[in-house]
Amino acid sequence: MADQYAQSGEDIRAIDDKRSEAVDIPAIRWEEPAEGPVLVLLDQTRLPAEEAELVCTDPQALVQAIRSLAVRGAPLLGIAGAYGVALAAARGFDVAEAAEALADARPTAVNLAYGVRRAQEAYRSAFGSGTGDGARVRERAAAAALASARALHAEDAAASAKMAEHGLRLLDELVPGGNHRILTHCNTGALVSGGEGTAFAVALAAHRAGRLRRLWVDETRPLLQGARLTAYEAARNGMAYTLLTDNAAGSLFAAGEVDAVLIGADRIAADGSVANKVGSYPLAVLARYHHVPFIVVAPVTTIDPETADGASIEVEQRAGHEVTEVTAPRVPVAGVEAGGGIPVAPLGTQAYNPAFDVTPPDLVTAIVTEWGVASPVTSEGLSELCARSLQVSMS
Amino acid sequence: MADQYAQSGEDIRAIDDKRSEAVDIPAIRWEEPAEGPVLVLLDQTRLPAEEAELVCTDPQALVQAIRSLAVRGAPLLGIAGAYGVALAAARGFDVAEAAEALADARPTAVNLAYGVRRAQEAYRSAFGSGTGDGARVRERAAAAALASARALHAEDAAASAKMAEHGLRLLDELVPGGNHRILTHCNTGALVSGGEGTAFAVALAAHRAGRLRRLWVDETRPLLQGARLTAYEAARNGMAYTLLTDNAAGSLFAAGEVDAVLIGADRIAADGSVANKVGSYPLAVLARYHHVPFIVVAPVTTIDPETADGASIEVEQRAGHEVTEVTAPRVPVAGVEAGGGIPVAPLGTQAYNPAFDVTPPDLVTAIVTEWGVASPVTSEGLSELCARSLQVSMS
Repeated sequence: MADQYAQSGEDIRAIDDKRSEAVDIPAIRWEEPAEGPVLVLLDQTRLPAEEAELVCTDPQALVQAIRSLAVRGAPLLGIAGAYGVALAAARGFDVAEAAEALADARPTAVNLAYGVRRAQEAYRSAFGSGTGDGARVRERAAAAALASARALHAEDAAASAKMAEHGLRLLDELVPGGNHRILTHCNTGALVSGGEGTAFAVALAAHRAGRLRRLWVDETRPLLQGARLTAYEAARNGMAYTLLTDNAAGSLFAAGEVDAVLIGADRIAADGSVANKVGSYPLAVLARYHHVPFIVVAPVTTIDPETADGASIEVEQRAGHEVTEVTAPRVPVAGVEAGGGIPVAPLGTQAYNPAFDVTPPDLVTAIVTEWGVASPVTSEGLSELCARSLQVSMS
Repeated sequence: MADQYAQSGEDIRAIDDKRSEAVDIPAIRWEEPAEGPVLVLLDQTRLPAEEAELVCTDPQALVQAIRSLAVRGAPLLGIAGAYGVALAAARGFDVAEAAEALADARPTAVNLAYGVRRAQEAYRSAFGSGTGDGARVRERAAAAALASARALHAEDAAASAKMAEHGLRLLDELVPGGNHRILTHCNTGALVSGGEGTAFAVALAAHRAGRLRRLWVDETRPLLQGARLTAYEAARNGMAYTLLTDNAAGSLFAAGEVDAVLIGADRIAADGSVANKVGSYPLAVLARYHHVPFIVVAPVTTIDPETADGASIEVEQRAGHEVTEVTAPRVPVAGVEAGGGIPVAPLGTQAYNPAFDVTPPDLVTAIVTEWGVASPVTSEGLSELCARSLQVSMS
């Protein structure tokens, strides 16, 4: 069945050739032109139609980019938050105020708050211990914030590589014989990370090892991150992928076409409950019903010991127009409708639009982090991974 | 939780007032202007943006309308198929050829083939027993085909009313205390029927009885029949409804916000396996996991004794551009892309796009027909319902 929906090698090469002509733009980068430092983002709302850059010269522009999902994905939000603090410091904005606005830009991703806090602490600590004139103290504190953001960025890239390694080993154990058919949801690749991502990085590692038979890509309504972003990354990497509506995943499970589900996470509670893009929980229920492993891949910073359980996770509710209208990357924004998109539902229709859902730990086969794998998923297992990460960072 | 997403009474009235100014166009009607008989369809691909009519003067135009989903929904397809045969007969086309093309226009809905066959048999029988000159015999046979289509149309309207009655009684039994919160998928109202529909008719009956707390409307990707058509019908009827992406249904179940799932069917196999719009099966799995009744509402003609089980149901695979592009009702068709829509996925992306999925009988709490309810769903129960319908139609 899979093969009839397969992209031919020729198609893939055609895309690959086309794409490789384009400049490879990283999801985020810090630049220091003469006019002062800026944070440059690849505007993810415009992919795959165009690779446009968004230049932030102040923290408020970054807050707006985070809210509009121009920059998104849990690990990348952490990096963006840290650079945002560095930008505020370097440009002379009120750092505490900027940090608060950045951390509050989206409530569910714990990594965002983590990145902001880490850079802010580096800033505060350098500021507090600074001697000499005020301007020099501020300058050194800003440099400390930037160094902290850069360190987080580098750590995240290294974490990606480690998650890919642990994840592929687990996949090979759970589904012996290679030839993996992986179903994924939302976007978890290089666009969400300082490296190659979380769940997507595992699929990419399988592809490079010649053991990926197919990547099934959920389109991921309402904002179509699967169709727009994961398909874009899969095509660029020459992977065998097929797109489907989120609705069609059930048919794939029933036909025995899915060997494992791999997803990312925006927050993992102390008990192992996983908040991730809405639609993850139904996949977990389907995976359980069909005896298919459901694997979460996320850096240790996604685990939040302060959040006891799934019920304590605050789930962001987004505007209804994301559901009642369709916004496609090439559509000009008319400005006359609520969200600037094309209405698909009758005027006045209200929508229920949670950005995330919560999967309880008993439906999660394993949580893969850069520090190892928790399986079965228990509070003890997660605490141990967190402790391992702290030990190393303190040693 | 439900109330925060509720439409206010004022909103509903506003929509209702606005809508009631518009002419109420039935989904299908037969007309006989001086130029010759025509079949007039409400073009469902253009809803809710505009209420446009599509006038078919030959069976080929109807085949095209069926394929493009301008006319759709299992019971309505049966009626359309019967009128299509009548149109071919009245307009002097080859009736056998037209019947074959109509029956093959979509493979999964058994009602389409049933309606075509019924009108064709009426035509043949009148033709075979006809005496006198050829033109008069043809004329009388055409009249017989039309009478057969009209009878099916009227029967379907009566069946809708009966299904609504049986369905509401079952709902009240399964979920005592009224105040039903019903989740539905795709579109199953007056737009798919000679009457008020199947699953939607039950929700409408609950609304009229003051026992509908909320209709949760799945948007139903890829063609958004929920957002475009069910929301349209719910708004017109002043029902309390809320739209959601198909992905968000899991969160509603987890929050205990769904009392029952009500869906239609395109084909029911002899063993009770239900083929319906893709996304129905995942809802059945979610409903089972959360101990929520999963109820299928369909006329007896949807039961196909010739199809032994779920594996024998042919599932229509539709074009990938329905997934890789977004076509919204107000978007001008550019004509340069594969499907005339707006691309959301990278160029060359292939899609898996089954129109239906199959839910096994053990996940179906009940099948509601105009002749009564099968619960639990067994081959014996379904045979009995079919026999009851045959007995009455022969008596």
